[in-house]
Amino acid sequence: MPSDTSRAPRRSSSRRGFLRLAGGAAGGIATAAHALETGDPLAIPEWSRTPGAPSASPPYGRPSPYENLGRKSRTPPAFPGASSTGTPLQHLHGIITPNGLHFERHHAGVPAIDPVRHRLAIHGLVERPLILTMDDLVRMPSVSRIHFLECSGNTPWLGAKPGWTLQESHGLLSCAEWTGVELSTLLDEVGVKPGAAWILAEGADAAGMSRSIPLDLARDGAILAYAQNGERLRPEQGYPLRLFVPGVEGNLSIKWLRRLKVGDQPFQTREETSKYTDLMPDGSARQFTFVMEAKSVITTPSGGEQLRAPGFREIRGLAWTGRGRIAGVEVSTDGGARWQAAVLEGPILTRCLTRFRLPWRWEGGPAHLLSRATDETGYVQPPRAALVSVRGIQSFYHNNGIAGWHVAAEGGVSHAV
Amino acid sequence: MPSDTSRAPRRSSSRRGFLRLAGGAAGGIATAAHALETGDPLAIPEWSRTPGAPSASPPYGRPSPYENLGRKSRTPPAFPGASSTGTPLQHLHGIITPNGLHFERHHAGVPAIDPVRHRLAIHGLVERPLILTMDDLVRMPSVSRIHFLECSGNTPWLGAKPGWTLQESHGLLSCAEWTGVELSTLLDEVGVKPGAAWILAEGADAAGMSRSIPLDLARDGAILAYAQNGERLRPEQGYPLRLFVPGVEGNLSIKWLRRLKVGDQPFQTREETSKYTDLMPDGSARQFTFVMEAKSVITTPSGGEQLRAPGFREIRGLAWTGRGRIAGVEVSTDGGARWQAAVLEGPILTRCLTRFRLPWRWEGGPAHLLSRATDETGYVQPPRAALVSVRGIQSFYHNNGIAGWHVAAEGGVSHAV
Repeated sequence: MPSDTSRAPRRSSSRRGFLRLAGGAAGGIATAAHALETGDPLAIPEWSRTPGAPSASPPYGRPSPYENLGRKSRTPPAFPGASSTGTPLQHLHGIITPNGLHFERHHAGVPAIDPVRHRLAIHGLVERPLILTMDDLVRMPSVSRIHFLECSGNTPWLGAKPGWTLQESHGLLSCAEWTGVELSTLLDEVGVKPGAAWILAEGADAAGMSRSIPLDLARDGAILAYAQNGERLRPEQGYPLRLFVPGVEGNLSIKWLRRLKVGDQPFQTREETSKYTDLMPDGSARQFTFVMEAKSVITTPSGGEQLRAPGFREIRGLAWTGRGRIAGVEVSTDGGARWQAAVLEGPILTRCLTRFRLPWRWEGGPAHLLSRATDETGYVQPPRAALVSVRGIQSFYHNNGIAGWHVAAEGGVSHAV
Repeated sequence: MPSDTSRAPRRSSSRRGFLRLAGGAAGGIATAAHALETGDPLAIPEWSRTPGAPSASPPYGRPSPYENLGRKSRTPPAFPGASSTGTPLQHLHGIITPNGLHFERHHAGVPAIDPVRHRLAIHGLVERPLILTMDDLVRMPSVSRIHFLECSGNTPWLGAKPGWTLQESHGLLSCAEWTGVELSTLLDEVGVKPGAAWILAEGADAAGMSRSIPLDLARDGAILAYAQNGERLRPEQGYPLRLFVPGVEGNLSIKWLRRLKVGDQPFQTREETSKYTDLMPDGSARQFTFVMEAKSVITTPSGGEQLRAPGFREIRGLAWTGRGRIAGVEVSTDGGARWQAAVLEGPILTRCLTRFRLPWRWEGGPAHLLSRATDETGYVQPPRAALVSVRGIQSFYHNNGIAGWHVAAEGGVSHAV
């Protein structure tokens, strides 16, 4: 009843009294409350009157038909098989990416690999070269770790297009629990020879995608992974086996892994010479820039959303760093004039997504939302302008700059910066 | 070459030298190593020669066709809609259960609920009764927590049938990251009146499944959940909204939640009088036994597996407790004569699955594998015989007794105890 809401003490944008400050929604809720006391307002819909579908149909479940999330490409592929599709992060919650929505980046499509016939060879500067089956690998000592994976080219250096959602600007980012054998376990098994300093990882796709990985990095938590979020890898994530190197460019995590060769220098593969480099203002190129620096983005409100009415909502987002743990995230709603500390959801894991939240009361006018992450090394996520001032405008990879969203007076949300 | 393996120092069942001690497998690996030095042994299969399928087809991915995991019922349902299907835990890794394999327990099938029309009412001993839409709930302050869910009747009191796998004996157990509004946040919003002590939670399925929940328990981390592992709830897990009460009988986590009523005593609903009770030897019945006590089980080797050859493998399993965190897990391979401490995979989370592992060298004879969990309160998982000595044989729920597996001399694995 109206008197209930008038008795309520007014509060600022705090968690309590959320609904009573909900602006346009308050009238509807007060009416419902009144209705509860006078009649039978909670209708019994048809789904409560008739037994529903029997279970396990199908035995491997699917999302509700009322949900239709999917991965999406921001541009058509240059040629068939060379594709990247983003995760719809703006519609997800928490830190886990469900397997069906994990982002993709392929160069020759997704090979259909028979796990019984698949082999992993390890050779080169090793005492005991080996060829392993999947059975061999699955029996070995294993680990399970929750880590993010980000494509080095995730957020375009030249900025987002105005109509883009988060899926287009930041969608080449996912997070899962990866299970497999630590690469260091296998290296101990084969015995690495003195002088070894690099490992070539090669995949079994038609492009034979390959990458040179420093031995130190390979020993720092890299996993020969066969499972993601509990079940075997999805074909798009490298079934039956991938390399997973946490905290670094996604391209090191070679999918459909077939071969590891230990050597004493980088192998200078096609992609790491023609592609994974950034041209600096002085004409030199940065090569072998592995670590993904601290980054964050607000997932809601975000591009394409329409805020319906002023009032309370929660600003939510994700932060991550290849250098370990996120130490803090700050959020601004006025384009950077003032910053507030967001709340981080625990546990805060190393080289993993961290979810952050900040209560916010939208008064109905324009707003400019930003987030800024700090990691455990003290590194602070910079504005894109700072990156450009150092690296120029011909970079392609490693855009971890602060990203912003404009909220218009009528509630439409779009990319800023 | 054979000389490589003969030079290798012999080790006991340690992680190093795994493959050199791998018994029957060693010959094959030595041959492969030889082949690597003499020719071109790593065949290039057809999937490496032809571009694979383009990506995002479909946009919501599916497992490899070489994988065919699914949920399964251990007995036919008593009547259509009354079903339970178990997670194939023996085939999973880590602690996250992928959404398509989350276990089910239904009484009137799965309702198909339109999220736009769904409502949550909260009334009774509250200052401000409310009716909420899904939009209201998703805007409210949220949390994300990784928790297990276990059906109180998961492991049959009378023991497993000999041919059962882990899916039949322990499959009504899953674990996911749940996101939603803390129930305490909503209770603060509506204002709980003095004298309130219980909450009725009611679902919108045709059975109108309901449960009485003590107010203290409801305030201890219960969540009005709308997402699991990042995406919206699956229909089988309560789309669009469920109550999630961590660490207690799964039946408190009412799916398709439509109503919460606050009262001063238990509501004595149909299921909690006719079902969720255990008959004691003295004729009394235990009622309102909420907490799921510490429990563990070895997931591999487990029932239905066939160990092919002696040698190294990793014993793996899961441990969990409704009283907080797992403190340790011990494993025996000789039926309980000797116990060793297993390694726990971190982070160890509260009211969540914990993965444990122990390296083991199977010598080729019979073995009797057991696991025993201890939680942070000091509680130790008991043998089933100890439970029976106190509660008799007419119990149904809360069988958290130690479970065992027999490994026969020829390698077949089946239920013990």
